[in-house]
Amino acid sequence: MTALNRRTLLATASAAGAAAVIGPLAASSPARASAPMSGKQAPGFYRYKIGDYEITAINDGVWMPDLAPGLFRNFSVADAQKTLADQFQRTDKMVVPITALMVNTGSRLVLIDTGTAGLFVPTSASFMDNLAAAGFDPKQVDVVLISHFHGDHINGIRTKDGQLAFPNAEVMVPAAEWAHWMDDGKMSATPEAARGNFNNSRRVFSSIANNVTRFEAGKEVAPGITSIAAPGHTPGHTAFAISSGNQSMMTIVDATNNAYLFVRNPEWQVSFDMDGAMAVDTRKRLLDRAAADKMLVAGYHWPFPSAGYITKEGSGYRLNPAAWNPVL
Amino acid sequence: MTALNRRTLLATASAAGAAAVIGPLAASSPARASAPMSGKQAPGFYRYKIGDYEITAINDGVWMPDLAPGLFRNFSVADAQKTLADQFQRTDKMVVPITALMVNTGSRLVLIDTGTAGLFVPTSASFMDNLAAAGFDPKQVDVVLISHFHGDHINGIRTKDGQLAFPNAEVMVPAAEWAHWMDDGKMSATPEAARGNFNNSRRVFSSIANNVTRFEAGKEVAPGITSIAAPGHTPGHTAFAISSGNQSMMTIVDATNNAYLFVRNPEWQVSFDMDGAMAVDTRKRLLDRAAADKMLVAGYHWPFPSAGYITKEGSGYRLNPAAWNPVL
Repeated sequence: MTALNRRTLLATASAAGAAAVIGPLAASSPARASAPMSGKQAPGFYRYKIGDYEITAINDGVWMPDLAPGLFRNFSVADAQKTLADQFQRTDKMVVPITALMVNTGSRLVLIDTGTAGLFVPTSASFMDNLAAAGFDPKQVDVVLISHFHGDHINGIRTKDGQLAFPNAEVMVPAAEWAHWMDDGKMSATPEAARGNFNNSRRVFSSIANNVTRFEAGKEVAPGITSIAAPGHTPGHTAFAISSGNQSMMTIVDATNNAYLFVRNPEWQVSFDMDGAMAVDTRKRLLDRAAADKMLVAGYHWPFPSAGYITKEGSGYRLNPAAWNPVL
Repeated sequence: MTALNRRTLLATASAAGAAAVIGPLAASSPARASAPMSGKQAPGFYRYKIGDYEITAINDGVWMPDLAPGLFRNFSVADAQKTLADQFQRTDKMVVPITALMVNTGSRLVLIDTGTAGLFVPTSASFMDNLAAAGFDPKQVDVVLISHFHGDHINGIRTKDGQLAFPNAEVMVPAAEWAHWMDDGKMSATPEAARGNFNNSRRVFSSIANNVTRFEAGKEVAPGITSIAAPGHTPGHTAFAISSGNQSMMTIVDATNNAYLFVRNPEWQVSFDMDGAMAVDTRKRLLDRAAADKMLVAGYHWPFPSAGYITKEGSGYRLNPAAWNPVL
């Protein structure tokens, strides 16, 4: 048996040269045209069942900021790079995939968060294409359920040109998010340079304010879908439990950003967490629950299709990605 | 903050009743028709780059035999169930996804193994659909590279009705596989009930025997693609290294079957390994190399898209799935 020394193998192979690959069919077969490179990824949707419910993870692409101190609060770029390298991840960028969940309960089609509407970065502008690839018409959506008011979650409520993207949907938002971001006093008290989310919330919601349903935590906001208070990332950041039959899952949304950093190191604070300490408490509480219940968990910024199981490991946790299933 | 007791939440929520989900838009919006359940998974293809090469993992579906003693040689169904449960996998079936690799080198389109041609089980018959979804025309394939002569690897050389599926491709096979399965003496010495692979190899190869290229281990069989002897599963079972620029990967093909069982427990023998002890040696040697080189590894029966990184863990290994990347 040949020793598995790659360098040796390749050295041997290159000596053999291209002639080795010319087979007996070459003379008689048509001239071989190179197949073009595709350069394009497969459509970013993936389906699974929770009880009778059909869940579709729908990807909006990925944001990949350079790994830089400004992203982090209480750990260094070197700390991040070590953890990422240990998990075979690139160490030059923080990879932030963006994946929303569509829940078909049979009676309602519920979209949890909406992506960026292409208003963020060029690599994150594929939500509507992937929605269509998954076979959904935006007019079919009955409920748009919002976790919090960051632009990568609410911008998709409108198309890029400002129309309502889901014209037949009831828009439901956490009352605590509305109370914070739509409060003119809180906006005035915020330095003008930091008012982006206040302004963007008004852009998205002002003209439909009377038709937006505000919900509290701990409520069944759609059939089998329950809101779970998860503050820290923002004041009203909300996770959701989804239950059907004897199966349940939870989306913890932005309770972690990049899984390789913040699932593994739950004490680490990303700069987007408004109240870093509270975000850590929420993150650990949700991940503890996920580990205890052995339930399927989704994270908005986890690798697509953003579904896995949480185990405790050392001083943090591990995301064990769910296996892709070709059949539902 | 609401306590994360799911039972409490759901009890509270059910008391609130369905009325809670009727929002202010309900009266004025059109009657809500339920969106139909899709019931269908996304197309099973996934792309990534190795240097200048574009790799496309193409899924043929999945085989899910009941977990039964006949599948295993030196461990029990209870052992298997414990390992599977620890990894959040179903414990009633052995899940065996089937995923081939297409390698576009720029000058050659090389397909490594070909799937079942729909001749195996109903849940594994989607290779050609996924090939088309990935944008490939079977006529574009320049080389079909075979790892070994089991039906789920060679049947796709022909369509279900027996035509050559890749009419312009050179078919390349391990010389040691050909020497074993096409040898009439070895076939005669095998009990008739156990001649399935001998007969099937003749069905696939006999009419094209003069046009099949046989290669040895340790050769560059296509540009940047090197054969690696990996016997045990079958006498000539072959892994492949794929190198372009400064990047390399390896497909270990059937050196493990189900990753949750045989990556974690490399000493365990699946009944499909003809020489179980040799298969264990090969498995450990390939996984050791993968762990040492920190290279991307594919397995034909790993969860789609069948790509990850190997780490040593306890007395076995762990498959760390590569993160799905929406952009290439």
